[in-house]
Amino acid sequence: MSKRNTTTVDIKESPLFWPARLKGNTLLVLDETLIPQKLHYIKVKNTKQAVEVIRQMKTRAFGQFLVVMNTFLLEMNNAGTGLKPVPADALLNKIQKTANALNKSRPTFPFAEVTSLVVGWARQAIEQNIDIPAFVPTRINGYLQGIRGRRLERVRKIADVLKDGDRVLTHCNVSGELAMAAHLARQHSKRVHFFATETRPYFQGSKLTAWELRRLGADVTLIADNAVGSVMADKLINKVIVGSDRSCANGDFANKIGTYQIAVLANEFQIPFYVLTQPSDKIKTGKDIPVEIRNPQELLTYLKKKIVSGVVSGFYPGFDVVPHELVTEAIALDVRA
Amino acid sequence: MSKRNTTTVDIKESPLFWPARLKGNTLLVLDETLIPQKLHYIKVKNTKQAVEVIRQMKTRAFGQFLVVMNTFLLEMNNAGTGLKPVPADALLNKIQKTANALNKSRPTFPFAEVTSLVVGWARQAIEQNIDIPAFVPTRINGYLQGIRGRRLERVRKIADVLKDGDRVLTHCNVSGELAMAAHLARQHSKRVHFFATETRPYFQGSKLTAWELRRLGADVTLIADNAVGSVMADKLINKVIVGSDRSCANGDFANKIGTYQIAVLANEFQIPFYVLTQPSDKIKTGKDIPVEIRNPQELLTYLKKKIVSGVVSGFYPGFDVVPHELVTEAIALDVRA
Repeated sequence: MSKRNTTTVDIKESPLFWPARLKGNTLLVLDETLIPQKLHYIKVKNTKQAVEVIRQMKTRAFGQFLVVMNTFLLEMNNAGTGLKPVPADALLNKIQKTANALNKSRPTFPFAEVTSLVVGWARQAIEQNIDIPAFVPTRINGYLQGIRGRRLERVRKIADVLKDGDRVLTHCNVSGELAMAAHLARQHSKRVHFFATETRPYFQGSKLTAWELRRLGADVTLIADNAVGSVMADKLINKVIVGSDRSCANGDFANKIGTYQIAVLANEFQIPFYVLTQPSDKIKTGKDIPVEIRNPQELLTYLKKKIVSGVVSGFYPGFDVVPHELVTEAIALDVRA
Repeated sequence: MSKRNTTTVDIKESPLFWPARLKGNTLLVLDETLIPQKLHYIKVKNTKQAVEVIRQMKTRAFGQFLVVMNTFLLEMNNAGTGLKPVPADALLNKIQKTANALNKSRPTFPFAEVTSLVVGWARQAIEQNIDIPAFVPTRINGYLQGIRGRRLERVRKIADVLKDGDRVLTHCNVSGELAMAAHLARQHSKRVHFFATETRPYFQGSKLTAWELRRLGADVTLIADNAVGSVMADKLINKVIVGSDRSCANGDFANKIGTYQIAVLANEFQIPFYVLTQPSDKIKTGKDIPVEIRNPQELLTYLKKKIVSGVVSGFYPGFDVVPHELVTEAIALDVRA
């Protein structure tokens, strides 16, 4: 069935892989801002609380997507708890209101692309004269399960890329997949050492990546973002693996600020550079990706204390774009399904 | 007299340019660890206190050199406060003890190179039958004044390199000279905008460079170390100017970790790369510079709070070596004098 030569072994899951889960009438959302100090799940009961969780950035990228999808399930559960069945029009209206509220929660994530799927399914149910509660939750769950399966498949692909003796540099955080692949590789007796950049200004490398790699038993060494060129020159790493926030049709991709210079340096030192992508035809090339300029306060303060003094301005592009020429191989999420 | 085409204007001094100064029987040492929150001078009265200041890293590079030189002046003052003149042998002995104590204060700085100068002057005085207190302080002060003059001359050279409209990237901190050159350039109606990297893990860029550039009236924008490639790709900078901790005979130099990757990126984008050097024949090439590996705790904690959790190892090379091929021009300290 598959070309890969790994035998079937269990994949141990990292909390960052699937950071939001429905349990009865409650959505449990991993509070990523408390990691690595605490593994705490926030209880979300309705749209308002979901919007709050997104707005306060308690969860990121894929976690936001999970919160959005599950919020519709929550609201349909809530609507169905009355004694009388809710009329289809009222339920569609409720779904649209939920979508609108979620779309407005943050400017950067393409929420509308996700919420419009659910609104579409609700309309489809009405057109086909099927009960919304009998149709939409099944579609949402099926959609999520499909993504889950394809992400687990990508974990296996990453594990195949990892070879015994590898010393892999990574940047920012790839939401569980790299740590899970590391665990899988070790089950196949491949010893891999990871170097994680701390990833200023948010320290995702120090707080998330180092934590989850260690949690799944991998060896990891933290380095300053400043030390990338130095460790490459000293031949301490032989592979780079990073994630991507947006992937383009031509292979360009956007990821956390710093990824671009790592790609340039890897190219300079002829170190293979791998990226996890979610292929998209919507964005043609990297030039079509608008770079989010974030609030420089994130650069000027830490733990609410000012690092600088007086009036110092900061410039904080949240991510940068890597041209496909610098990519050795894209480890793509299968999108046929 | 000079080839430079700048007219004579006052150079405004930055506190980081000359961070230790004798005032009567007290050596005032700028506590750089309190910058940018406080401009505070520690009062040093004797060798023991000087060693403490160095050991606690209250001052860095050039500041350490100033503390060492001035400590001999302090001790000679202290010895001379009695009623009877101190015998030459006893004074030489005291100077040697002071040198030994200073040499042992920290492993990285070449203290012995500096203290042996003073011990040599004391021996010379004895050989030539001159009173040590009449000879050595004059030599120390003359030596310091010579360096001061050559550093001010280098400030003028940097100001000549700065052109109207420049957008200059700098890394770590160059102990006052860049900020003073910026001030001088503005007096010549040259508008220059600076980008300072924050320079993890110590934040010298955020704490020292941004502070002193602003203090001398320059425009400065702070960026994450991760954003260097991005701002270069976006053509936001047209010049790089950095300092050097050690310069080699062949033009290679060592500087704060991160300098090397900035040089590689500048080369990639054909952005002129300038370095302030102290030419030395003692070190032939960059390969002869041992790279100090610092305590990774500096990477794992901030403001005494852990950034990471659990057992995460860190690797923290304190500086890296830039090969001369990547240097466009060295702005050298004149060493003829």
